[in-house]
Amino acid sequence: MTAPIDPGALGPDQARALFRAGLRVPTSGWCAGWTQANLIGVPREDAYDLLLFAQRNPKPCPVLDVTEPGGTSASLFAGDLRTDLPGYVVYEHGEPVAEVADATPYWREDLVSFLIGCSFTFEDALREAGVPVRHIEQNRNVPMYRTNRMCRRAGGFGGPLVVSMRPVPAAQVADAVRVTARYPSVHGAPVHVGAPVELGIDDLAAPDFGDPVEIRVDEIPVFWACGVTPQAAVMASRPKLAIGHAPGHMAITDARDTRYLVP
Amino acid sequence: MTAPIDPGALGPDQARALFRAGLRVPTSGWCAGWTQANLIGVPREDAYDLLLFAQRNPKPCPVLDVTEPGGTSASLFAGDLRTDLPGYVVYEHGEPVAEVADATPYWREDLVSFLIGCSFTFEDALREAGVPVRHIEQNRNVPMYRTNRMCRRAGGFGGPLVVSMRPVPAAQVADAVRVTARYPSVHGAPVHVGAPVELGIDDLAAPDFGDPVEIRVDEIPVFWACGVTPQAAVMASRPKLAIGHAPGHMAITDARDTRYLVP
Repeated sequence: MTAPIDPGALGPDQARALFRAGLRVPTSGWCAGWTQANLIGVPREDAYDLLLFAQRNPKPCPVLDVTEPGGTSASLFAGDLRTDLPGYVVYEHGEPVAEVADATPYWREDLVSFLIGCSFTFEDALREAGVPVRHIEQNRNVPMYRTNRMCRRAGGFGGPLVVSMRPVPAAQVADAVRVTARYPSVHGAPVHVGAPVELGIDDLAAPDFGDPVEIRVDEIPVFWACGVTPQAAVMASRPKLAIGHAPGHMAITDARDTRYLVP
Repeated sequence: MTAPIDPGALGPDQARALFRAGLRVPTSGWCAGWTQANLIGVPREDAYDLLLFAQRNPKPCPVLDVTEPGGTSASLFAGDLRTDLPGYVVYEHGEPVAEVADATPYWREDLVSFLIGCSFTFEDALREAGVPVRHIEQNRNVPMYRTNRMCRRAGGFGGPLVVSMRPVPAAQVADAVRVTARYPSVHGAPVHVGAPVELGIDDLAAPDFGDPVEIRVDEIPVFWACGVTPQAAVMASRPKLAIGHAPGHMAITDARDTRYLVP
């Protein structure tokens, strides 16, 4: 199956139907104006610790919605969470055991799924402000990195902050901060500007998730908190089971971006 | 014990010491610049439902901090949560069974305590903007009302939205909205302006919690979501045990108001 020529023009239902049919692509640039979300599902017995982890780390883990145990849709997501994302990673005791296009065989009756805000949501606003979004220009997945900053623990859950990176021309860094700060529920303003080594990132060309992108000589790498952080916590904290989206392959929700825009 | 002449000038430690010694007063106007919080504690087995209830109802239930099970202090509250508020209500199976100045006899090893944002936090900002705060002028507790709006349920927890009311001169209603909207973590902008009957409030002179206040002829009653909402949910949902602050008698935290101010 090939990607549509203009994925930005699709609605959430149309995109989810393509993913359900097996299309596997990163979703940056898809469904302009619709909110994208990270997925992390854990058994009910681990859901309190994960929800508290999110409460204690709101910058990487802004919770948009939580399903009932075993729920396969959510108030913000009318599709089927087991099949309607373009990719999933399944973890057992913190180890990724499968990367799949259909998570149905791994779903459990007591799985509680969290939808967590995603920075793809504000990329339309960045582009409207004239700030380039390199991974969209290069048709790649966004680069993501584990950092040396530890999240606040909650019960069994702890781990490092994960960030996404976008190279921004020096003259437009302030615009990038100003625009994204208006979307606090989808990671908001950057957590760090320049100096990747201060985050413990040695090589921008070797991201931990996603693809590397070109950084031009007049550009500064700008880092935003990333909703892959709960998956890094799963890897560090080893709950029995967890199901996440494949990084960059998001849940496209039925909420408009403007819902998360503050004045 | 009598209240200090200028409670607004006290720091959180000083105020908590007075409350620990037995002073029982509403805290509106106390400790200018310091964030105040609602308290609700439930056994660990009910904590997930309550945390999810808060996530689903962020306007009345903005979570500022959550203790470890049995914890008697919090990262935002260096005092002793059992004694350092000016009053508590203890609920068993949803019934208020005690109103006490010291909750120690009721505390349990597995009690998880939630600190929830309180609109007293933005009253300094209102007064600085020239908006009168009648219950402070009249040295009364703020009036609070159960409404006919139901919160989104979470597991065992559901119940009505509770609101606080401040009468605002018609010419200053816009200022009151603008100023408080900048504090989304402590209830933010009003949920309703004027027309109390639309909220199911028949008689402003008979609040469900707190004291009635004077409403002048040029004033509009303005309603903000209230952190007593979780206590109304406890009354409706009847968990085995819950410990809340006495309405208007808040936890004074070690966080500055400005921490919750957005640009």
